[in-house]
Amino acid sequence: MTGTFITVEGPDGAGKTTQLQLLAERLTAEGYDIVMTREPGGTRIGNEIRSLILNPAFSEMDEMTEILLYAASRAQHVNELIRPALAAGKIVLCDRFIDASIAYQGYGLGYSIEQVRTINHQATNGLEPDRTYLFDLTVTDSKQRMMERGALDRIEQRDDLFRQRVYEGFMTLAEQEPERIQLVNANQSIEVLQNNLCQDLLTYLEKRERLS
Amino acid sequence: MTGTFITVEGPDGAGKTTQLQLLAERLTAEGYDIVMTREPGGTRIGNEIRSLILNPAFSEMDEMTEILLYAASRAQHVNELIRPALAAGKIVLCDRFIDASIAYQGYGLGYSIEQVRTINHQATNGLEPDRTYLFDLTVTDSKQRMMERGALDRIEQRDDLFRQRVYEGFMTLAEQEPERIQLVNANQSIEVLQNNLCQDLLTYLEKRERLS
Repeated sequence: MTGTFITVEGPDGAGKTTQLQLLAERLTAEGYDIVMTREPGGTRIGNEIRSLILNPAFSEMDEMTEILLYAASRAQHVNELIRPALAAGKIVLCDRFIDASIAYQGYGLGYSIEQVRTINHQATNGLEPDRTYLFDLTVTDSKQRMMERGALDRIEQRDDLFRQRVYEGFMTLAEQEPERIQLVNANQSIEVLQNNLCQDLLTYLEKRERLS
Repeated sequence: MTGTFITVEGPDGAGKTTQLQLLAERLTAEGYDIVMTREPGGTRIGNEIRSLILNPAFSEMDEMTEILLYAASRAQHVNELIRPALAAGKIVLCDRFIDASIAYQGYGLGYSIEQVRTINHQATNGLEPDRTYLFDLTVTDSKQRMMERGALDRIEQRDDLFRQRVYEGFMTLAEQEPERIQLVNANQSIEVLQNNLCQDLLTYLEKRERLS
């Protein structure tokens, strides 16, 4: 049996991390073997790369450098943690993955989508999530929520136009892969959102088990 | 006028750094405007990446992570330092560049040469050195010299078979691009080697000036 790879994506401040945590607790209670992780980061080396990418002091960072650093962190994450967990039949819940790179570096920074895809395809050796929950939150709400959280990292400091392009990028991805990418309304209470997510994922996992 | 991009390559312990330093002094005395730099590193962000790559504590580093980190450091180096210096008509002397990635990560680690080339081509947006001095030193001599230097970094700790594949990689590159890549016998005294290098480079630079 091989595991299931679930990712959550969407703008900053959409509540992804909170929901993922609750989801992990619920699935564990249901008897599933869960690995919860995030990008950038997820491994010791990935966390080193993460702090480099997000450090507001490195304002001179070149865009291609940023793309390659995300990809380097992802290569380590996939090979050290995600693939072994999937091979052991576990359910991997991952906060952000390739879609985030395509939305932020491709659409957001205006880099060639094809180039970002190619680099990331090499980094992951073709690994794709089985199901992705895209948290839908307006640019205005995302910004508002980030401000309330306090100090912004290097990526969060980017302007409204950047956020808008990222949002459009995510929507384009969702249109291209409606089977894999499920839109989630992030403007619901934590409880309602969690129930909807959980129900969808449990149904999906049961269906996968029946088919395997 | 655009500048000239010179790189030195070859195994560890071949004396590249010493020779580059002497070359920079000599060319400066001749009135040339020199920028001396190295990889991995060369910039503030590049140096952060360098210490991550070379740290012996990160023995779990995935090979694709290593390839992407070198490329990330290179992207920063090219866009922040090398291209602006060349645009200002300077002579850039760089200790290691793409050839090192192809020899070490491609041939050495046994990764697809094509993949390493593609990633690096994207990182540099196609920038190639004008002339490259490949320091030729046997695997045995390289190892001997590294041992004498003391503590080895993560890459230097690799075994003889790795060193042998790297050597073969460099030789293959030299065969493929005999115009750009000049072989240099690293088994000469510092003075003789420096004189030969300097003479060749001055001739090359004068020829370039005449043609431009």
